[in-house]
Amino acid sequence: MEEIKNEIIEFIRDEFKKYKYFGVVLGISGGIDSTVTAKLLVEALGKKRVFGLLMPERDSYKDTLKDSKMVCEHLGIKYKVIDLSPVLRRMDVYKMKPPAKIFPRKYQERYAKKQWENVDSPYIKDLKNSGGDENRKNLAYYRVKHRLRMTYLYLEGEKRGYAIAGATNRTEMKTGFYVKWGDESSDMEPILHLYKTQVQKLGEYLGIPEKILKKKPTPDIAPGIDDEYALGINYSDLDRILIKIENKESLEDESKKDVNKVKEILEFAQLRNVKNESLLER
Amino acid sequence: MEEIKNEIIEFIRDEFKKYKYFGVVLGISGGIDSTVTAKLLVEALGKKRVFGLLMPERDSYKDTLKDSKMVCEHLGIKYKVIDLSPVLRRMDVYKMKPPAKIFPRKYQERYAKKQWENVDSPYIKDLKNSGGDENRKNLAYYRVKHRLRMTYLYLEGEKRGYAIAGATNRTEMKTGFYVKWGDESSDMEPILHLYKTQVQKLGEYLGIPEKILKKKPTPDIAPGIDDEYALGINYSDLDRILIKIENKESLEDESKKDVNKVKEILEFAQLRNVKNESLLER
Repeated sequence: MEEIKNEIIEFIRDEFKKYKYFGVVLGISGGIDSTVTAKLLVEALGKKRVFGLLMPERDSYKDTLKDSKMVCEHLGIKYKVIDLSPVLRRMDVYKMKPPAKIFPRKYQERYAKKQWENVDSPYIKDLKNSGGDENRKNLAYYRVKHRLRMTYLYLEGEKRGYAIAGATNRTEMKTGFYVKWGDESSDMEPILHLYKTQVQKLGEYLGIPEKILKKKPTPDIAPGIDDEYALGINYSDLDRILIKIENKESLEDESKKDVNKVKEILEFAQLRNVKNESLLER
Repeated sequence: MEEIKNEIIEFIRDEFKKYKYFGVVLGISGGIDSTVTAKLLVEALGKKRVFGLLMPERDSYKDTLKDSKMVCEHLGIKYKVIDLSPVLRRMDVYKMKPPAKIFPRKYQERYAKKQWENVDSPYIKDLKNSGGDENRKNLAYYRVKHRLRMTYLYLEGEKRGYAIAGATNRTEMKTGFYVKWGDESSDMEPILHLYKTQVQKLGEYLGIPEKILKKKPTPDIAPGIDDEYALGINYSDLDRILIKIENKESLEDESKKDVNKVKEILEFAQLRNVKNESLLER
């Protein structure tokens, strides 16, 4: 772990030397990925050069803002809270969906999960774009928030001559479990080479607050929907299978169902995340 | 020209077959690049599957919206106008700069050009990030608009299952004359392999409205600032030099000053447009 940590710190310092940034901005969500990234940035650059942006909106969990503030205070970094709700409202985004909050929590969860009844992996359904109009509206509805966050990160960063750091991990990158031109768009990605389970171990090693370590990873898009529910597989199985596929190792010991799920994700993620295709590459 | 046109049409149709898009959205600015791209999309897919998004804001030229509507009507495509101003106001972007419009046009131009007095290429100054706080604020101020436009294009596109088409050309791509995660972020880029001067010739061949062909290319960011003023070199010299550099041809016949300018742009554009750097590639 010490080696992994040192390599990242050196990487961050190299980037700063090469591109002469004055500091770095990153979005803090109260999740493990952004917390680990922030911690590493602080270790590499000192807390004065790290700036956190907290961007909750109408549909965020109550804990999102509270945990994010706690992380910033724990690390001793400056931060700013920007409520995205008024802007999203102005963009008519909220007209697309009623606020979940007017319903009691258990109804919210039931409602959110209902649309994926009998669906083994909601994410694969998303990737296949097979849910018709309603599914497309859902996709557009949560993706716009990530792109707006990216837009704010660059607005704050560019004013200051700061780099924008992302917190995408290797599991997300491989499975396409991110928003194109949203949370995956940055200047530097300190943990992109680490699988989710490695980030979790690194988080423990770095002494990230217990509450953040224990939290279930979630895309924070709908009540009751966490990453593993959405993906239809837990991270330790997913990472192990991804690593075996990458190393061309035998998949004999793995559940056939899980392997097929992962292969399906990999296939469709590639199809769904096309970027700037052109005649240049031909 | 017929060959270039047919190749692009085939490319667009291939993309549609591969990714099963229901249609395509693109931003129409009233400039030659988006007009040529829209025209090619219509030829490839029929006008019913092409949707134009017009996104003027407080600082846009008066002609921007008028010309963009004219283009959509000329092509017979559906379009929607989204005024970005209320959202940019909500984002406190306009607080960064006074509206130019309250001053008479000639003062506006004088004001806009004043900050680049004695500067041979404002774009190189931007790239070098050498203008201090004021320069950084300017950069952040115009880039946020492009990223907001991208966010809107995807919101409209994803709702419909449409692809997002960009209109970046090869000259812009090579020189970094675009906004990272803004106008260069799309699903497909039909004219990315063509230099600006080639796009202009293709536009003539395709029978693009005269007014659009004759217009000076401009980033539409400040009064009096057109592309060639910002770059500090005209497109025909720029493209000729870029092509010679690409083909490793002799630059003997070119003006030394221009060659150095282009080389400086290429060097700094690379430095300024870093994306998602990580330990993965190492």
